Amino acid sequence: MIDIQPIEWLGNRVKLLDQTRLPQEEVYLELSDYQAVASAIRELKIRGAPAIGVAAAYGIALGALEIRTSDREAFRRRLNEIIRTIAATRPTARNLFMAIEQMEQAASLDENTEQLKGALIYQAINIHSTEIEATRRLAEFGAELLKDNATILTHCNTGSLATTGSGTALGVIKQLAQQNKKITVLVDETRPLLQGTRLTAWELSRANIPFKLITDSMAGYFMSQGRVNSVIVGADRIAANGDTANKIGTYTLSVLAMENGIPFYVAAPVSTIDLALSSGKEIPIEERNPAEVTHLQGISIAPEGTLALNPAFDVTPHHYITAFITEKGIIKEPYIERLKKITG
Amino acid sequence: MIDIQPIEWLGNRVKLLDQTRLPQEEVYLELSDYQAVASAIRELKIRGAPAIGVAAAYGIALGALEIRTSDREAFRRRLNEIIRTIAATRPTARNLFMAIEQMEQAASLDENTEQLKGALIYQAINIHSTEIEATRRLAEFGAELLKDNATILTHCNTGSLATTGSGTALGVIKQLAQQNKKITVLVDETRPLLQGTRLTAWELSRANIPFKLITDSMAGYFMSQGRVNSVIVGADRIAANGDTANKIGTYTLSVLAMENGIPFYVAAPVSTIDLALSSGKEIPIEERNPAEVTHLQGISIAPEGTLALNPAFDVTPHHYITAFITEKGIIKEPYIERLKKITG
Repeated sequence: MIDIQPIEWLGNRVKLLDQTRLPQEEVYLELSDYQAVASAIRELKIRGAPAIGVAAAYGIALGALEIRTSDREAFRRRLNEIIRTIAATRPTARNLFMAIEQMEQAASLDENTEQLKGALIYQAINIHSTEIEATRRLAEFGAELLKDNATILTHCNTGSLATTGSGTALGVIKQLAQQNKKITVLVDETRPLLQGTRLTAWELSRANIPFKLITDSMAGYFMSQGRVNSVIVGADRIAANGDTANKIGTYTLSVLAMENGIPFYVAAPVSTIDLALSSGKEIPIEERNPAEVTHLQGISIAPEGTLALNPAFDVTPHHYITAFITEKGIIKEPYIERLKKITG
Repeated sequence: MIDIQPIEWLGNRVKLLDQTRLPQEEVYLELSDYQAVASAIRELKIRGAPAIGVAAAYGIALGALEIRTSDREAFRRRLNEIIRTIAATRPTARNLFMAIEQMEQAASLDENTEQLKGALIYQAINIHSTEIEATRRLAEFGAELLKDNATILTHCNTGSLATTGSGTALGVIKQLAQQNKKITVLVDETRPLLQGTRLTAWELSRANIPFKLITDSMAGYFMSQGRVNSVIVGADRIAANGDTANKIGTYTLSVLAMENGIPFYVAAPVSTIDLALSSGKEIPIEERNPAEVTHLQGISIAPEGTLALNPAFDVTPHHYITAFITEKGIIKEPYIERLKKITG
């Protein structure tokens, strides 16, 4: 199922598929220092909450390998600086901070610096394989839930590129296709950066799963026409009450789905859940460069001097969400206790 | 107020501002035959329901001037062919068919062919000046209604370019600015053809009205944040019960506005109302070339072979609409009797 490897650990380097060049070019980067990994995350060469977590972990491991001291305290001080750089790349995805916490745990072992480097590499590989396994399992749960859904609408990219596994929302869709369920997919283009057009369309084409591309503004029309049976999206951060931050436009889909009586599912690994935040109001929303809205692939599309706004995510209040699809099973209301239970 | 003239009648030619080239270039076309006008409408060189009606009328007048017979029956047969060509350009905007009906009325006068040509030109000029006057009046009514609305969200382009007057939704916004009301405008980019980015941003820049450009997928986010006080859009066709066809994405805005307790206004001249259709279900929705979704300004943005859907309009059911803003005043529920009354 996993034919696309967006991240690979090469022992002392990280190999990344540059997602900003897709679908035109399949370019792999080999990064040997943590700053390059931080830049790659910031510039969306690697993106998608679970994949950001994995890249962050490998970035920290690379940074640790670069540290030349054998003094444990000096090593930890330098490692903290590296972690701060990685942490400052993108604010919204929970998985980034979850990965950092797990790497910090590895760094706190009572070992010498060479052993700590080994522990950090081991932990990063562990985070990576955990994410792959999580998406494999959640895809199975999700496919059971959506098995009779002919037309599934999805947003952004939540496949191998976004997760390093088979995917969250797109993992469920791939699983259904593998089970020979007759499905068709409506893919939102996902402006401004067109992750639907560029990345989801690319993954679905490779997997021979039938899909139609639409603009984000068309989703409501197809829902109102009875042409969508379910909506499934990924998540960047899930608060304790189930409020969910995801790619800008997700909230709109959830409102449209409820208005049209269509189930709205969020597929995400447990690593996306953040029990420290009681509601979505506390989730930091990244504001990106307005040029992403006024330009398209480097070409100016608006009049000179046009001001734009560019929030990269929005928050879907929990009451619009029919269920969460996780590697621990399908989670329905009441979310507060059930999300807490699976985050053990 | 009207500093932009998208259509001008030059006696035996029609001068059009080519809206597909904006905002990069201000190119005026001079068209001397009706087929060229039909192509210009089909290719969106001129667009916007009221402007399509005006262009259609001038196109028919041009076609009439080209007819060489003085036999009245032969003249009318030829004129009917010309009208069929113009009618087949775009299916959704009511104003196109309203203009055709008015031109047919002029052609049915008991006059000789030279007099009929004169009557057709006179009628086209009359349709044009009626639209200008209608938008002037509806902008005044609308400005009274929206005077305390600080942030107004709008979709597509509904200004001078779309109406030949000051505009419908954008006419109201310009009127508020002229009255020195402190307003700011959120402009949806309006994929796939970016009428918001290219045309509304251009008109607002010229009028020095502050605005921020957003992607269509961001409108819900700003509404949920309490950052939108009202939504105002134009219309392509209004059925007898108030159901309204407008640019794809409008239905979504209406659902989001209701969910967030924000008033949702439709500004349109009476020429957009179609009492022959009892509800929005009967409004024909134009399906345009999928390449408009998979390409942007001629550049392919999706993987080779990607299929796309491209409905150009959607229908907003009347119960999402707070009021219609027309040149005959503000129309609230019950729409069936009140829309009928003003369409006399």
